[in-house]
Amino acid sequence: MEILERAIQEKGKVLSGGVLKVGSFLNNQIDTNLISAMGKDIYEKFKDCGVSKILTVEASGIAIAVITAQFFNCNTVFAKKSKTANVDGELYSAKCFSFTHKNENTLIVPKEYLSKDDKVLIIDDFLAHGEAVNALISIVNAAGATLSGVAIAIEKGFQGGGDELRKKGVNLYSLAVIDSMENGQVVFRKN
Amino acid sequence: MEILERAIQEKGKVLSGGVLKVGSFLNNQIDTNLISAMGKDIYEKFKDCGVSKILTVEASGIAIAVITAQFFNCNTVFAKKSKTANVDGELYSAKCFSFTHKNENTLIVPKEYLSKDDKVLIIDDFLAHGEAVNALISIVNAAGATLSGVAIAIEKGFQGGGDELRKKGVNLYSLAVIDSMENGQVVFRKN
Repeated sequence: MEILERAIQEKGKVLSGGVLKVGSFLNNQIDTNLISAMGKDIYEKFKDCGVSKILTVEASGIAIAVITAQFFNCNTVFAKKSKTANVDGELYSAKCFSFTHKNENTLIVPKEYLSKDDKVLIIDDFLAHGEAVNALISIVNAAGATLSGVAIAIEKGFQGGGDELRKKGVNLYSLAVIDSMENGQVVFRKN
Repeated sequence: MEILERAIQEKGKVLSGGVLKVGSFLNNQIDTNLISAMGKDIYEKFKDCGVSKILTVEASGIAIAVITAQFFNCNTVFAKKSKTANVDGELYSAKCFSFTHKNENTLIVPKEYLSKDDKVLIIDDFLAHGEAVNALISIVNAAGATLSGVAIAIEKGFQGGGDELRKKGVNLYSLAVIDSMENGQVVFRKN
């Protein structure tokens, strides 16, 4: 998606440890016009998939997810990274390691918010090794729901998680795929 | 706001420790039509305040904030509860205690995302003792920005944070104010 790639080139910053900082437009600060355009683009890609629910993970996936949900006229569910005092009842859970934050989380979703009749579109801001998306897919499977697809703002193609999902037959759409970030230079995968 | 009060009565659940669970429509699962209506309502209240930026705190404030930002055609900044690998540069920070989660967080916002020219509308899902809102206000002040107002989905009026802000002259708008939750019964404040 051209306007996202341009934002990454102009405003993104490659930090140490293979971290891409997009804090000025996608995370920490959220560019309303950009994420609205991204939501519309995701809708165009999945509009014939009968999506009944969007699933994401806190915190930085929430913005893109809820904006996109408006186009599908469906609700959003976000997985939490820990059980808090305002969560009760039975839960789906799945472990996932964050390479950015160097910690392991257990993603949890209350069972009451996903049903076997749901057609689920998973949305997240980043896909690298695929840990979070695989955890969310396992939750969709545990619920007996149907996975309509996965939409990602920025895929770090060189970390392999996206291509593994494609090999498994997952309907994955990444708005921008980065093939390398060496020497601070972001190189996008050609379509 | 009537449709929010109705959702709280019909779908909310009073848990122990004075916690109101609104997970099925505002947190964990987000009702798209409801938060769109809430965003429009907040816009109607503050549309003449010249709002140039919306400030919230991760995670559950993000959904209402970004939906509301669409009406103002401005960007959203969310405070993080900890410094992560994708944050660099100078930060504004303010401590805040969470009575729901029984822990203290340091809210941080990179200085580059708030300027003295900003007119800031703070948005959050809950206001109880006012810890988070007061921390966000101190960040707005530290940035030399102007506080246009504070919009809250659900104020727990009986915990006093909202009335303290009103006494200080803060332009506070809560879409629903709860005066008591005794015996699991939610009683709203009359306008």
